[in-house]
Amino acid sequence: MKAHTKYLVFNTPKRRDYINITAEVTRAVAESGVQEGLALVSAMHITASVFINDDEPGLHNDYELWLEKLAPHAPTNAYRHNRTGEDNADAHLKRQIMGREVVVAITKGKLDFGPWEQIFYGEFDGRRRKRVLVKIIGE
Amino acid sequence: MKAHTKYLVFNTPKRRDYINITAEVTRAVAESGVQEGLALVSAMHITASVFINDDEPGLHNDYELWLEKLAPHAPTNAYRHNRTGEDNADAHLKRQIMGREVVVAITKGKLDFGPWEQIFYGEFDGRRRKRVLVKIIGE
Amino acid sequence: MKAHTKYLVFNTPKRRDYINITAEVTRAVAESGVQEGLALVSAMHITASVFINDDEPGLHNDYELWLEKLAPHAPTNAYRHNRTGEDNADAHLKRQIMGREVVVAITKGKLDFGPWEQIFYGEFDGRRRKRVLVKIIGE
Repeated sequence: MKAHTKYLVFNTPKRRDYINITAEVTRAVAESGVQEGLALVSAMHITASVFINDDEPGLHNDYELWLEKLAPHAPTNAYRHNRTGEDNADAHLKRQIMGREVVVAITKGKLDFGPWEQIFYGEFDGRRRKRVLVKIIGE
Repeated sequence: MKAHTKYLVFNTPKRRDYINITAEVTRAVAESGVQEGLALVSAMHITASVFINDDEPGLHNDYELWLEKLAPHAPTNAYRHNRTGEDNADAHLKRQIMGREVVVAITKGKLDFGPWEQIFYGEFDGRRRKRVLVKIIGE
Repeated sequence: MKAHTKYLVFNTPKRRDYINITAEVTRAVAESGVQEGLALVSAMHITASVFINDDEPGLHNDYELWLEKLAPHAPTNAYRHNRTGEDNADAHLKRQIMGREVVVAITKGKLDFGPWEQIFYGEFDGRRRKRVLVKIIGE
């Protein structure tokens, strides 16, 4: 069994952002030499997300409005978590909707994807250094 | 390490549907010969979902009403994604709530499930051909 | 390839609860002897969740209020599932928001975690015996 570990680093200028990381994950799969296996891609921070969906800016705008409706950032004092001095309770909620991680199959040395699957880093409390883990196992 | 890959194909007559695929996944595990390992079951299309819950039609009806409340299909022009000519923005949102994939343990050659766990394909924009990937690794 | 399987048992006195199980999973990783691999941690019951987020009681209180807003327990007769004699339809919905499982990387014999990642068992219909599965594969 082979294992390959890679960390991607992000520091988004905006509080919230959606970044396509498919190319980086594809590169990690090539580096691993794994032909058949699994790739785990996970946010290492609890106010961020890794998810698979469409690379279409209109959809990302829809996510943005929708997540703000389901878990609004303000008023920040509506959340007990923010009494700790943080203002990011909403980001902990948004991340549960969008998910922490994806697990992707590797078949014949490639990400085994449908026609529109793209991997995104979803940032909900940016403007600080954060990491994504790529862990590949297989043979 | 063994690896086994299988694709299930769906073309639901309705826009939204919930289909029990546990038997197909069970069959794939048997075909793989894997005794100890993991099975990834994932929707290859970004307006569909694979999730684990109860095989109870009343609950599926509850999911249907709940998802329509959280991410309504209409009015379709409320979503910027639909300006691309699609009318399925809501399906991209519903799929985030229900999830893209499940990872299931294989123990002693079988899906290691609790008493009520069943695997479902959740379709949110049907009436077209779509696939689900089953990837099994282990020994 | 090594495989290690462990079952954790819960019987919460309250209907809903959030329990940190990171120490139990860490112990299972040590027992497995796996240096490089993946750990699946999944709820074996369909009204419970395993998720990764912050060990901060204010945040858990926020989750509690938020989940009750998105999928309220009462009125129980608003859910068709409850016509089966159950009163836990809301728990099946809450679990979809919070997720069934997490997959965690094992690197150099340890859970490869960011600074605040902690694994939680989320119970949404407690006061009965339930299990969580930990499945570790790797080398």
